[in-house]
Amino acid sequence: MTRVGIAACGIIPFTRDDQSIESVLLESVVDLFEGSDADRGSVDAVLVSTNSNSKYLAPILSETAGLGPNIAHTVENLCNSGTNAMVSGYSYIASGLADVVLVSGAERYDSPGQVLEWDRSRGGFKHPIFWASILARSYKRRFSISEEQLAMVPVKNHRHARDNPNAMSKKACTIQDVIESKRVTDDIRLLECSRPCTGSASVLLASEDAAKRLSKEPVWIAGIGQKTASAGFTKSESFSSLESTRIAADVALRMAGHAPKDIDVAEVHDAFSVCEPMALESMGLCGPGGGAGMVRDMYDTENRMINPRGGLIGSGHPLGATGIAQAVEITQQLRADAGSRQVGGARTGLVHNMSAAGTSSTVLVLER
Amino acid sequence: MTRVGIAACGIIPFTRDDQSIESVLLESVVDLFEGSDADRGSVDAVLVSTNSNSKYLAPILSETAGLGPNIAHTVENLCNSGTNAMVSGYSYIASGLADVVLVSGAERYDSPGQVLEWDRSRGGFKHPIFWASILARSYKRRFSISEEQLAMVPVKNHRHARDNPNAMSKKACTIQDVIESKRVTDDIRLLECSRPCTGSASVLLASEDAAKRLSKEPVWIAGIGQKTASAGFTKSESFSSLESTRIAADVALRMAGHAPKDIDVAEVHDAFSVCEPMALESMGLCGPGGGAGMVRDMYDTENRMINPRGGLIGSGHPLGATGIAQAVEITQQLRADAGSRQVGGARTGLVHNMSAAGTSSTVLVLER
Repeated sequence: MTRVGIAACGIIPFTRDDQSIESVLLESVVDLFEGSDADRGSVDAVLVSTNSNSKYLAPILSETAGLGPNIAHTVENLCNSGTNAMVSGYSYIASGLADVVLVSGAERYDSPGQVLEWDRSRGGFKHPIFWASILARSYKRRFSISEEQLAMVPVKNHRHARDNPNAMSKKACTIQDVIESKRVTDDIRLLECSRPCTGSASVLLASEDAAKRLSKEPVWIAGIGQKTASAGFTKSESFSSLESTRIAADVALRMAGHAPKDIDVAEVHDAFSVCEPMALESMGLCGPGGGAGMVRDMYDTENRMINPRGGLIGSGHPLGATGIAQAVEITQQLRADAGSRQVGGARTGLVHNMSAAGTSSTVLVLER
Repeated sequence: MTRVGIAACGIIPFTRDDQSIESVLLESVVDLFEGSDADRGSVDAVLVSTNSNSKYLAPILSETAGLGPNIAHTVENLCNSGTNAMVSGYSYIASGLADVVLVSGAERYDSPGQVLEWDRSRGGFKHPIFWASILARSYKRRFSISEEQLAMVPVKNHRHARDNPNAMSKKACTIQDVIESKRVTDDIRLLECSRPCTGSASVLLASEDAAKRLSKEPVWIAGIGQKTASAGFTKSESFSSLESTRIAADVALRMAGHAPKDIDVAEVHDAFSVCEPMALESMGLCGPGGGAGMVRDMYDTENRMINPRGGLIGSGHPLGATGIAQAVEITQQLRADAGSRQVGGARTGLVHNMSAAGTSSTVLVLER
């Protein structure tokens, strides 16, 4: 079977701007083609990732971007729509139905994907912050983690975001700032939350031959793992680990022929601060309860290995674009093209993208 | 590469019922598992096809149906969402990422996919009937087709629908009824329109080995063709032919190693009466301008070759379910399991599903 590579990337600054979804989508596609040798005529599938209620966005994007694909449709799965669309694009290429696939994710700051209408089990409320609060309480209690330790996640990620020209905010913050920020739930402070925003990111996926033709330095999708454990939060096996993430990471690493210790750089889905240490543990990048210590070490040593662009907390979280923006960052890192965010010598990278209290997860392993 | 087959089907009556999208989705999945030997544990991907604004429906369906897939997401592309999801499912299997994929489409009668917010070029109005009106006028003028000839499409398809237990309406109508029905636009009468409805249809796709294990008589997806020509109606190359349909049919038939004359039975996307003869011509099932004559011949001889279940006009048009319902019909026909709708000796069938004035089309060729 052909290898599938990322041949080009596009991304735009994440903002709170009131733009139409169609124009937000188009902007990262324009950035992609301006920054690469790829030609529009080579694209034979266009996949849009979004939670927007607007319909037929893939044909609309194709028309506005001057593309004439065969396959074109939208992919939605809340916050991991982006990596779902990338895996779908991978499968179109690996199956032989397409050779070059544009995967473009976009969201507006007021995305309808932020409200979980269906699941009143999330504490009787409809916003993800309520499940995050339950996870935070459970995680802190089980592993005796303090509020200060979890606060290191946003401090570290906001610090990284200052070197990310596309991050929504460049404001530094201290542990004190986090702890003194508004208490949104019993266990979550305002500065521990990623913020919805307007943004877009795109990748051009290609078969091995096409990737080598379209790019001087393609990055390869070496491993893919996905798991949907449930939709409802209360079906989780535990409130202090992420079952779907554990399974997805295991499958992705096995497919790539790697162990967790081989990962040089990773984008991890820190929708709320507690998600980062939980994901690190569930993926085996450290032992159970070791995530908070790993964060503290990175905080102390200014190590950028996890969430070098600032993660969701530092960069902003445009739902349908997030997974693709994560992949853009890891691609730039593996190409040694990440400027002041560069993690030295990165050869193997990982993207972790999840939805709805970690009820579903995607993990991608990328390689030079 | 592995062949991909349809191992099981599920469908429910199309109605105007006010059910939640989650429960409509579930019903055809329950029907699928009740009517087959397939086990829920074999399903490793769940794709939902819908225009509903509800999010995260694939994980929700998985949970309610007792499935634990790896891959799960929604696919949307207006009226051909269903076949887009089937092709995506095909590619997950052909790429090796999945072995068995449930593709389930559903819609409510009040689907937001019926309003085309983005394209004011459709006569300044937002409903598809305005482009259908332009197509009807152009087609009738170019080929000197009368109103009576086009009226044979709904009469024939409503006649077929009387043998379809899942059709929304069993009411017969005459050419006179069609011509005397309410004039909705200058060139479209009420009885020439398919009607939005609440409905659901599901197929279980499987690799060759799995299909043979799960089903005594799998039907194979032998050909796939897709084309997105544009999103905006005014970019069409002609108002009296369907460019995307022509290209998609050509690719699908070539992939299957068939000529148009080999097709024994077909479901054709008759969103409005004029679409049926135009699609027949664009797919090469007859020559340019010959579609209306082909319809008249079928009308006169009670030949059920085209739209044996009644098409969209006879069965109802639950947008995201339509392409899958078409595939369910052709699967039943090829298994000689279509009861009083059976087209004798059918061995090679075709599904034609399109969106938004034919700006995009999918064609599938199915075989025993």
